Amino acid sequence: MPQKQLHLGAFMRPTTLHTGAWRYPGSWPDTNFNLDHLVRFARQLEAAKFDAFFMADHLAVLNMPVEALRRSHTIASFEPFTLLAALAMVTSHIGLVATASTTFDEPYHVARRFASLDHISGGRAAWNIVTTSNPDAARNFGLIEHMDHDERYVRAREFHDVVTGLWDSFADDALLRDTQSGIFFNPEKMHVLDHKGRYFSARGPLNIARPIQGWPVIVQAGSSDAGRQLAAETAEVVFTASPNLRAGQALYADVKARAERAGRAREHIKILPGAFIVLGDTREEAREKRARLDGLVHYDSALASLSIALGLDAARFDPDGPLPEVPETNDSRSARERVVGLARRENLTVRQLAQRLGGYAGLSLVGTAQSVADEMEEWLCTEGCDGFNVMFPYLPQGIDDVTLHLVPELQRRGLFRTEYAGRMLRENLGLPRPANRFFAGT
Amino acid sequence: MPQKQLHLGAFMRPTTLHTGAWRYPGSWPDTNFNLDHLVRFARQLEAAKFDAFFMADHLAVLNMPVEALRRSHTIASFEPFTLLAALAMVTSHIGLVATASTTFDEPYHVARRFASLDHISGGRAAWNIVTTSNPDAARNFGLIEHMDHDERYVRAREFHDVVTGLWDSFADDALLRDTQSGIFFNPEKMHVLDHKGRYFSARGPLNIARPIQGWPVIVQAGSSDAGRQLAAETAEVVFTASPNLRAGQALYADVKARAERAGRAREHIKILPGAFIVLGDTREEAREKRARLDGLVHYDSALASLSIALGLDAARFDPDGPLPEVPETNDSRSARERVVGLARRENLTVRQLAQRLGGYAGLSLVGTAQSVADEMEEWLCTEGCDGFNVMFPYLPQGIDDVTLHLVPELQRRGLFRTEYAGRMLRENLGLPRPANRFFAGT
Repeated sequence: MPQKQLHLGAFMRPTTLHTGAWRYPGSWPDTNFNLDHLVRFARQLEAAKFDAFFMADHLAVLNMPVEALRRSHTIASFEPFTLLAALAMVTSHIGLVATASTTFDEPYHVARRFASLDHISGGRAAWNIVTTSNPDAARNFGLIEHMDHDERYVRAREFHDVVTGLWDSFADDALLRDTQSGIFFNPEKMHVLDHKGRYFSARGPLNIARPIQGWPVIVQAGSSDAGRQLAAETAEVVFTASPNLRAGQALYADVKARAERAGRAREHIKILPGAFIVLGDTREEAREKRARLDGLVHYDSALASLSIALGLDAARFDPDGPLPEVPETNDSRSARERVVGLARRENLTVRQLAQRLGGYAGLSLVGTAQSVADEMEEWLCTEGCDGFNVMFPYLPQGIDDVTLHLVPELQRRGLFRTEYAGRMLRENLGLPRPANRFFAGT
Repeated sequence: MPQKQLHLGAFMRPTTLHTGAWRYPGSWPDTNFNLDHLVRFARQLEAAKFDAFFMADHLAVLNMPVEALRRSHTIASFEPFTLLAALAMVTSHIGLVATASTTFDEPYHVARRFASLDHISGGRAAWNIVTTSNPDAARNFGLIEHMDHDERYVRAREFHDVVTGLWDSFADDALLRDTQSGIFFNPEKMHVLDHKGRYFSARGPLNIARPIQGWPVIVQAGSSDAGRQLAAETAEVVFTASPNLRAGQALYADVKARAERAGRAREHIKILPGAFIVLGDTREEAREKRARLDGLVHYDSALASLSIALGLDAARFDPDGPLPEVPETNDSRSARERVVGLARRENLTVRQLAQRLGGYAGLSLVGTAQSVADEMEEWLCTEGCDGFNVMFPYLPQGIDDVTLHLVPELQRRGLFRTEYAGRMLRENLGLPRPANRFFAGT
């Protein structure tokens, strides 16, 4: 049996999650909204054989305090779907993962756009299903009250079923184009869905041939109970936010077990935690880079993050002193313990701790190409993940570092491909082509 | 004063409206759904200096009798917006006109996608506003009863106002990206729309900088009273379906006068009738090509078109005899008179007449490059139009004929540009950049 390999996605909207990244020395401050840069990144990631270019999405400018707002480098971004259709023309193998909301869009539109992207890209489209929890988004779509959490997931499941049903509108051999007889297609190979459900009714058929991949790859990122269950039943790639290996292993075991209970094969659902990767020639240099980056986070925004994590107003602490003993509150104990532990372990001042949380607080792999490859290997070999959704600290250096140093190290170890398995995203992810539910054998 | 010149759009979804086109000898049967062909066409039209590549849209497979359905070459097409984002990457000057429905979409989505396309294409996007009258589309979006005609136009007007308001969310100088101070943008240069209207409420702001053109160009194609009025108030390009010069002149005068009454300059609304162009080396050859093309229309479908035009069942006539005298009916007299006149004038059999109507029944310019240029010149110089939305009879020959023969003839006469005026669609159409309603001087 060949060695298990990592799958790598690149988290590209925003191009970096770190709020200080655009100010980092030598980095480009406009990467979220500069087409030339985004084309360069996509080509560079493809040359490094990344599985996919992943775009999250926000359907709003977040309604935040003005001091934080005016420091936000994500204020202007391309609509992800539009951008990915454009990037499809300048790449040939990398997967294109766009986000579409099941709360603020229509199944017929979503089915049609993703089918089109799949055909245009030669079978590289993926749909990241989100239910959109942000109330600022609701206000842009005429909703005062946002739908409640569980209802959003029931709706998402029905939305998924309608979209995949519409993708199955045509058998693969429906289009005849027989110029002699004048018969363009065989209507017996076209299925009228006629869906009438709780949230949607959609007659169909879709006015586009079945996607090249059968269905674009289904991606999901929910971590709640309802989110995990939706993922286990429908998703083929799950982007997770596990803060450490133990949490990653628990989530991995839970989602794979849920998938098996839903009648699916474990290997047909890939678990990719987000990993913020900072590389240096030495571990010390990598830690210095990270500290320098965190130091660019504005202290007011940073304090807000620390106060939320501790469940108290952190403005009363001396910024340049150590974190004092903090009293118990009713807020999440695990978050507080993690923050206090981090401060003690790395001997951080209040300012450094706040800036760490205000920059990027999730799983971070900070070290040399060798040490980060060691960590990734451990995650892969101990059922912590099937790969990672890589987050870059600053650009372009963060992508340069990963593609020039980390990827070759992973390839040397046999942990990452040196050639794409095929042109389709499904082939590269090792996922089967879904059968057409209405037409056997196609 | 320089000579007035034609503006030329290319009607590309479907790539040809003629139902027999895909069967024409030497033509490609799959042009609606073949990316390589569409890329070739876009580049070819750009090399010929066409103003725009125009995509109409259908939000459904039309629910037609099976005999007509299985002969339909438009059963599978790309979603136009996705396709145009892709074509933006392989062209540099031609305008990209996508259709979005005000009945089945949301202003925030539409504003965001077209702003993205405008940025990605360097200022070449245009939005063709349609209200979507087709009941088959309504059934794909959960609507049993379709909204009535006038209500759709009231909604369309509000939709337009919300979209353009969202495009004005940012002043052109809002983005500072000052890495030293850490200030990314100036919130005083961001406007929160907070629209609450009859059909929509949308808080805003849009999460994308103002489009390069200020606003993408606004296109409209309604011909009813409500449609003309919406066009006169909002549109910068109007695609019309005038069957002959006299009708074209009447429509031209009416829409320009309505625009002036709405406080706009006549020259800021361009009237482009659709024109189906068949070229030959001689007029006789062009007519033979058209007859050959019409002969590929299936007689059953053709008969349905003839029966509708005459207001009676034409199946009782001898297909190969001349059109008999037809009795008066309560149906549209002008349509019937036009059809009877056509049959007498061109001495057509019932079959030929039916196939003409079943193929393409609108304005047709059939002749040599010289004779068609004569007709276009007459339309332009007698206030029948400001240009044409060209429809091709078959592909690729139809585009080859127009770009190799007709365009050079128009250029020789000084009636069409030999170089683009600029990179932006607005520059090429001679349209001003709209002022930002919330920020003076940008």
